[in-house]
Amino acid sequence: MKLKKLHSRLLHGEKGLNGWCSIPSTVTAEIMSGYDFDSLTIDLQHGLIDYQTALLMMQSIVASGITPIARVPWNEPGIIMKLLDAGAMGIICPMINSATDAKKFVEATKYSPIGYRSTGPTRAVLIHGKKYHQEANETIISLAMVETVEALNNVDEIAATEGLSGIYIGPSDLSVSMGFEPGLDREEPKIEQAFIRILSACEKNNIIAAIHCLSSKYIKNRYEIGFNLVTISTDIRLFGQILGERIDEIRK
Amino acid sequence: MKLKKLHSRLLHGEKGLNGWCSIPSTVTAEIMSGYDFDSLTIDLQHGLIDYQTALLMMQSIVASGITPIARVPWNEPGIIMKLLDAGAMGIICPMINSATDAKKFVEATKYSPIGYRSTGPTRAVLIHGKKYHQEANETIISLAMVETVEALNNVDEIAATEGLSGIYIGPSDLSVSMGFEPGLDREEPKIEQAFIRILSACEKNNIIAAIHCLSSKYIKNRYEIGFNLVTISTDIRLFGQILGERIDEIRK
Amino acid sequence: MKLKKLHSRLLHGEKGLNGWCSIPSTVTAEIMSGYDFDSLTIDLQHGLIDYQTALLMMQSIVASGITPIARVPWNEPGIIMKLLDAGAMGIICPMINSATDAKKFVEATKYSPIGYRSTGPTRAVLIHGKKYHQEANETIISLAMVETVEALNNVDEIAATEGLSGIYIGPSDLSVSMGFEPGLDREEPKIEQAFIRILSACEKNNIIAAIHCLSSKYIKNRYEIGFNLVTISTDIRLFGQILGERIDEIRK
Amino acid sequence: MKLKKLHSRLLHGEKGLNGWCSIPSTVTAEIMSGYDFDSLTIDLQHGLIDYQTALLMMQSIVASGITPIARVPWNEPGIIMKLLDAGAMGIICPMINSATDAKKFVEATKYSPIGYRSTGPTRAVLIHGKKYHQEANETIISLAMVETVEALNNVDEIAATEGLSGIYIGPSDLSVSMGFEPGLDREEPKIEQAFIRILSACEKNNIIAAIHCLSSKYIKNRYEIGFNLVTISTDIRLFGQILGERIDEIRK
Amino acid sequence: MKLKKLHSRLLHGEKGLNGWCSIPSTVTAEIMSGYDFDSLTIDLQHGLIDYQTALLMMQSIVASGITPIARVPWNEPGIIMKLLDAGAMGIICPMINSATDAKKFVEATKYSPIGYRSTGPTRAVLIHGKKYHQEANETIISLAMVETVEALNNVDEIAATEGLSGIYIGPSDLSVSMGFEPGLDREEPKIEQAFIRILSACEKNNIIAAIHCLSSKYIKNRYEIGFNLVTISTDIRLFGQILGERIDEIRK
Amino acid sequence: MKLKKLHSRLLHGEKGLNGWCSIPSTVTAEIMSGYDFDSLTIDLQHGLIDYQTALLMMQSIVASGITPIARVPWNEPGIIMKLLDAGAMGIICPMINSATDAKKFVEATKYSPIGYRSTGPTRAVLIHGKKYHQEANETIISLAMVETVEALNNVDEIAATEGLSGIYIGPSDLSVSMGFEPGLDREEPKIEQAFIRILSACEKNNIIAAIHCLSSKYIKNRYEIGFNLVTISTDIRLFGQILGERIDEIRK
Repeated sequence: MKLKKLHSRLLHGEKGLNGWCSIPSTVTAEIMSGYDFDSLTIDLQHGLIDYQTALLMMQSIVASGITPIARVPWNEPGIIMKLLDAGAMGIICPMINSATDAKKFVEATKYSPIGYRSTGPTRAVLIHGKKYHQEANETIISLAMVETVEALNNVDEIAATEGLSGIYIGPSDLSVSMGFEPGLDREEPKIEQAFIRILSACEKNNIIAAIHCLSSKYIKNRYEIGFNLVTISTDIRLFGQILGERIDEIRK
Repeated sequence: MKLKKLHSRLLHGEKGLNGWCSIPSTVTAEIMSGYDFDSLTIDLQHGLIDYQTALLMMQSIVASGITPIARVPWNEPGIIMKLLDAGAMGIICPMINSATDAKKFVEATKYSPIGYRSTGPTRAVLIHGKKYHQEANETIISLAMVETVEALNNVDEIAATEGLSGIYIGPSDLSVSMGFEPGLDREEPKIEQAFIRILSACEKNNIIAAIHCLSSKYIKNRYEIGFNLVTISTDIRLFGQILGERIDEIRK
Repeated sequence: MKLKKLHSRLLHGEKGLNGWCSIPSTVTAEIMSGYDFDSLTIDLQHGLIDYQTALLMMQSIVASGITPIARVPWNEPGIIMKLLDAGAMGIICPMINSATDAKKFVEATKYSPIGYRSTGPTRAVLIHGKKYHQEANETIISLAMVETVEALNNVDEIAATEGLSGIYIGPSDLSVSMGFEPGLDREEPKIEQAFIRILSACEKNNIIAAIHCLSSKYIKNRYEIGFNLVTISTDIRLFGQILGERIDEIRK
Repeated sequence: MKLKKLHSRLLHGEKGLNGWCSIPSTVTAEIMSGYDFDSLTIDLQHGLIDYQTALLMMQSIVASGITPIARVPWNEPGIIMKLLDAGAMGIICPMINSATDAKKFVEATKYSPIGYRSTGPTRAVLIHGKKYHQEANETIISLAMVETVEALNNVDEIAATEGLSGIYIGPSDLSVSMGFEPGLDREEPKIEQAFIRILSACEKNNIIAAIHCLSSKYIKNRYEIGFNLVTISTDIRLFGQILGERIDEIRK
Repeated sequence: MKLKKLHSRLLHGEKGLNGWCSIPSTVTAEIMSGYDFDSLTIDLQHGLIDYQTALLMMQSIVASGITPIARVPWNEPGIIMKLLDAGAMGIICPMINSATDAKKFVEATKYSPIGYRSTGPTRAVLIHGKKYHQEANETIISLAMVETVEALNNVDEIAATEGLSGIYIGPSDLSVSMGFEPGLDREEPKIEQAFIRILSACEKNNIIAAIHCLSSKYIKNRYEIGFNLVTISTDIRLFGQILGERIDEIRK
Repeated sequence: MKLKKLHSRLLHGEKGLNGWCSIPSTVTAEIMSGYDFDSLTIDLQHGLIDYQTALLMMQSIVASGITPIARVPWNEPGIIMKLLDAGAMGIICPMINSATDAKKFVEATKYSPIGYRSTGPTRAVLIHGKKYHQEANETIISLAMVETVEALNNVDEIAATEGLSGIYIGPSDLSVSMGFEPGLDREEPKIEQAFIRILSACEKNNIIAAIHCLSSKYIKNRYEIGFNLVTISTDIRLFGQILGERIDEIRK
């Protein structure tokens, strides 16, 4: 299989860097693929992107070799399988609150006898090669989002789900669920404790510990405390940030 | 938050007028936004519209200040949340048959601690402003469709759902469920009784009573008997109606 | 060749009725094709439609048997030929001001030895059949717009252009060029004289005399004085008209 | 109702031939509609197609009279009803593993009192005519996919589902579920036994027995042993096949 | 007419700030419209944008009140008029090398008797109001690009073109034409002399002097020496710049 | 610069094989890019493809390394330059009938001082690298179509055009211009003489001699007599061919 830049990185014990695509555009996706990301996630949940556009975006970034991941809107097998058939090498699934949720999610990403994914990897086989079916179960990355207090309480069971590749922390939702305001790069002790608890569950199960971040400083800190995959902001936030800075420089 | 034309209308005890978009086109949506509707509903259920087009349509009507609403295909959290993140200020959900259905629907539209909506209002925050998270729970309109005999029997519990903004009657489905032919602007006594029963449940719970109508005469009557929000036909029906009239004038 | 409803109508000495598509939508086009038009013109000049959308629209109206026509943005061979290859059975070309303009236009619609149209009727041959090349020169309708004072002065030469199917009057542009305000359904004597002059030139050359109209009454009058093809308004105007009427009924 | 080419074929006791569209393109769909298929299935499961594109594709094949079918991504009422409202005359639903699954699926395709399909056949009524509501329940084709061992064990109950039109075998998934490699045109005795068992259940219930095939030889054999509807390969496979053959001829 | 933020700015003797859209996306355009630009130019020349997308982008920025401008691919009346009819309030035309070029361009943007623009402002009248025809000639901004040595030599005649609103310098093409490498924010004395010469021609004719820039520092300098409209970089460059900076911070 | 598979092939004195994309689809384009073509031409003339779709198609084939070429609708600088900026490595221009036509075409593909191409290689620089401007003039392939008797008579001057990369024969148009029926793989002596004359002119000027073909046998013969670049049929013809063959096998 191809497009395994993230897989290689992690296999060598290195840290992964993920970019985040919320803009429904092949052009912004292709531009991002020109930078040194290990993976690019096309966000079909909070991003402004639906399946047909996600397909075009995945087509536009193949040449980079970067691993294409998709975040699905919800834990629903139809869209998970469609995105895998379209060539996604990983799925991030929001709102995994229990072991049952996690099992339902993971099994949607695996062919029988492990899961219930339907075979018919239309574009996946074109892109990743003829051994796709044989290699998919062990290659496709499944990341369960832990982002509620309920999920936090069940994190050990979730992390222990057979076949799950890792946990992706949604810091904003988790903060809201814990009674805080939404936002990223959290430093409140209670939230940090929650993060550490999730990280520990991942380490215990030897799975990926991933988290969505904003600043480079925070990202480096996350790497240091043990996370092996981080996301830098989103395309929309970065674009807005530089627009704001530049307009301010001129207007002032 | 912005785009609260419908909210203002209702707050002042006035009647709301809703337009209905079934055509997947930013041009027809933008044209409609030039007329004095209080809200425009983009119909992803029976309308010929999917998420990516709905996003474009919501972008094309912002300048009017009219409140954008979306009807979802089914009571499924993924699409409800996607449309809210895309900037919809209200959701109409079909086939709410029980208090359980209603609760599942309403909570998908509310952030914690009231509901389970995931935070990440990508376009919503761009359009409605930085206080979006703080204001969304009390501003987003949720309208449950009561359109089966089962729903009618449960209408008091449905109407009493914590956080529900109102009930939207689907006269055609309700008629079919009651054993009549499909169609709008119903005057059969049994159907009218059902409407009145729903209207009463809304009034008792002080929530919006909305209904889909065709003729201006029928709409005025609905206003008179107490409905506070009505829909005029659909873009497709209106377009077909004038085409039919004009062709007939010339061909005869 | 197929989709010759307009051809049949005119061949029998009957009057043709043309619908006008300015909305870039397969849905509005398909709806229009359900009514008794003889031809539907997809307007790539003032309409909000480009080639790729025009192709989809032409695909969506085939089942009706109505003759598909395209108005091009300008007298430019590239787009004229692209639309013919996409299956258009007629071309309306704006701003034909001289016999030279007319000849350049007409020859772009004809294969050698009459014109310089390039052969490669990709979709046309799929839709109209294998004899497309042999039949196209005599079947494709070319309508030159006479809509300036200069064109009016040259109307006899324009109308006499070898192979031209007819003249399509643009009443609004012609009025503006003559020093009046823009608008359709003109009754000013000077403008009517201009129309009559164009009509006479068409009759003398035994070609189609066509005109863009609004009201049914005006259309009937145009038929009576000898025009053989008229257009009813546009999709956008009709849609706006019924919206305005219905909103007024309710709001008043 | 219109577009009943497949219905006519089967009504006369003849065999049906189905084409398979996985490419999200109105052009490839329209080309296919120029060949003698009885039905064309637009595949929203493994095909690279989402609702908005499926709508365009269904618009582009109307003129052929071929019966439009859609395969949905999953047994979810929202997308089943959207596709029917868009004009699909049949639905193929994957992964029907039990009588409960089958009942949920079939009822989503039927109006009350038989099922729970919501009324509002926006494009369907434009295309199929004003009696759509009255005729839909008996005309819409519902095909349940039997493609797992679990489904095989429940095939008699599935086939007996009230209102189900037939069973569509997914040979590749069924093979995988039975412990074989994926693939079509299977000849392994155990797999053939499974096919025969499904075929018998269909025959017993007098419903359509359909199967996805590759080669013409295998198709003819399927017809001979009693299947009444077969699919020839997919657009993507056929396109790849001829490209491979032609390139090989030249490069060698 | 509406969307005259740039007009107001310049009318008050203030400096205009223009944003540049090369990405074919309503989302990036809408984000840009949330910042304090006076105008946004949708680039159909070097930008990756065609008419149909430009229309959607213009629809998505109306609410901001920012003046929409389009750069056309070439001095061709068809596309100039289409973009004005779609609601553009200004046109930037590349490669105006002579007074003849300039006259042809300007007259394409003006209705008779000044120019030869065809009337039919389909979306323009919806957006800008019913007096559009009466106000367009004096409101539409026409900016001729001076970007070759030939144009430089003819700059006085170009600047004196009746009805021309201003000159937009293309620093990169002009530099190339003068024998330098391409690029913006030029400081070579010969190039600066050329800029000054163009600026003087604009000042003499009391028309807008505009220039495409990169850095805030350079922009401020351009304002100081007399330019009244500047462009900040492009969406693609800004997006790439912040991606590069952020990745570098983390990877190093 | 990248995507020079065709350049390498020809540089080594080998024969080039070109595929032809007329279907407006990233999926068919990406499938084609999986086969051993040296170049793929996206046809914006007779193909059903416009700029915005061509951009997406060029994005979807980058990973293959195959050289992307575009055929433009007409010898018009706007679209030639847009396609080069979008990343096309070659342009095929139809209906080059004289040295003047050829010069106008070639210079549109070259930066100053050789031509008048405007600089601003938005996507080209992202894809082909930072030295794009310096390398473009010598790397971009320009192929003039000789396809009329007039062009044939001027072929020596056309072939001698400074900077022209080669001549692409349009056999069908040339045949029609010579008084024959349209079609490819011509064997009529007069037509073959014309081909030979063009081939000789190419050989004399040491430029590419290219021709559009259908059958493998004819292609091999063209290679043998000296053509160095051939096109195999088109995507639409190949797709139709295999559909026809397969349907015939089954229906008979």
